[in-house]
Amino acid sequence: MYRLFIANKNYSTWSLRPWLLLTQLQIPFEEVLIPFGSSEWHNNPSPTGQVPCLADLQANDKTTVIWDSLAITEYIADDYPEVWPQDKKARAWARSASAEMHSGFHNLRAICTNNIGLRIDIREKTTPALLKDIKRIEQLWGEGLTSFGGPFLAGQNFSAVDAFFAPVVFRFQTYGIELNDTAARYADHLLGLPAMQDWYQSSLAETWRDEPHEVDARHAGHWIEDLRAV
Amino acid sequence: MYRLFIANKNYSTWSLRPWLLLTQLQIPFEEVLIPFGSSEWHNNPSPTGQVPCLADLQANDKTTVIWDSLAITEYIADDYPEVWPQDKKARAWARSASAEMHSGFHNLRAICTNNIGLRIDIREKTTPALLKDIKRIEQLWGEGLTSFGGPFLAGQNFSAVDAFFAPVVFRFQTYGIELNDTAARYADHLLGLPAMQDWYQSSLAETWRDEPHEVDARHAGHWIEDLRAV
Ligand SMILES: N[C@@H](CCC(=O)N[C@@H](CS)C(=O)NCC(=O)O)C(=O)O
Ligand SMILES: N[C@@H](CCC(=O)N[C@@H](CS)C(=O)NCC(=O)O)C(=O)O
Repeated sequence: MYRLFIANKNYSTWSLRPWLLLTQLQIPFEEVLIPFGSSEWHNNPSPTGQVPCLADLQANDKTTVIWDSLAITEYIADDYPEVWPQDKKARAWARSASAEMHSGFHNLRAICTNNIGLRIDIREKTTPALLKDIKRIEQLWGEGLTSFGGPFLAGQNFSAVDAFFAPVVFRFQTYGIELNDTAARYADHLLGLPAMQDWYQSSLAETWRDEPHEVDARHAGHWIEDLRAV
Repeated sequence: MYRLFIANKNYSTWSLRPWLLLTQLQIPFEEVLIPFGSSEWHNNPSPTGQVPCLADLQANDKTTVIWDSLAITEYIADDYPEVWPQDKKARAWARSASAEMHSGFHNLRAICTNNIGLRIDIREKTTPALLKDIKRIEQLWGEGLTSFGGPFLAGQNFSAVDAFFAPVVFRFQTYGIELNDTAARYADHLLGLPAMQDWYQSSLAETWRDEPHEVDARHAGHWIEDLRAV
């Protein structure tokens, strides 16, 4: 049995990846949400103290702990091959794009701090480095959708590469980033998935506020709207 | 047939990973080295313009391009299962540690710029953040070696997780970082592998000098020795 440790849905982009993957592929798991800064944080079995973390509880009472979203993805893929596209070329592309996201896009991450329930005007803070990250995402999405036929990045079926880019879709929504038509259509498609809607509604319903994340959001730009529950 | 695009062995830590993996596991491949800043850089088929990049040349004249060291690793693993440990628990650990390295250790990377042929005194530049990264590596290595019995990180056989930490071993050598006994023994073991010696000797023999990398190295600390060919 899989037990997935995550943090606040409103803030935690890394948590969203394996959660969405498991939910969208209807793979059974138990969710454990530990709010940032809460006293329950020590329940997180990850040796890095970060989320996401997956505990695989085996029949023999042994537990395997897997930390880091990409390692969790590959671990699940060993049990459920539908995590990655079955076509070898599509799988190679999906893994390359996911690994690029995993170790890159630092400007986008640093400038567009994740806060799903906010709408923030970023125009004053836009830098060439940020635009370069956004352009690269448009290029990647365009390439995947064209090469493998859509509507998902690596073909007809949702796969891990969609889960890896899902957090970016929420960031684009928060900051009202303008995308080209192909990218905008893909972003809408992802936002419309029931599992994405579920995560989104849970984000808005959260009433915890983590000060470090709120400070980042205050520095990110002018707040247009706060859709979160009070 | 695999064709692996890499850059200067003296500088390119990301290139070392798949190169070492293929070489150490005796998987056939063709090496294409493109020096940083050279006019041959456009021969690199990676859409990110970075190395490493793997081209898999198929019999039907089609080529699959895989970029990013971790995606390359998983691509090769589909063809050669010995890339990861066969034991499920060891494999989960190896993937977690590799993914953590892939997206983390920013302080170590930023402060200890890679330059295999130099010996640099880092003492003045040592920060708590750097020490934290080093401690985490000692902890990770200790955990792997103890849990799976050594002499490699995930057991008796060399696997991808060793390839992922190999660049760090060269950094520790360049900067004379003091490690605890277990970590020091593992670092020596890796440095002694014929494939690591091969890469090391090629690094020293290189006569290209890439100015951006040399500037980083000049800022890194006081140079004790330059072992590179002139
Ligand atoms: N590379 C990791 C990154 C995980 C990460 O940065 N998690 C953040 C939350 S989104 C975290 O746990 N921060 C709390 C902390 O560092 O103490 C992954 O892919 O899982
Ligand atoms: N996450 C990538 C990083 C690759 C990377 O940063 N490569 C460097 C050389 S070690 C590079 O190609 N730099 C040249 C450039 O960015 O133009 C990977 O794992 O392959």
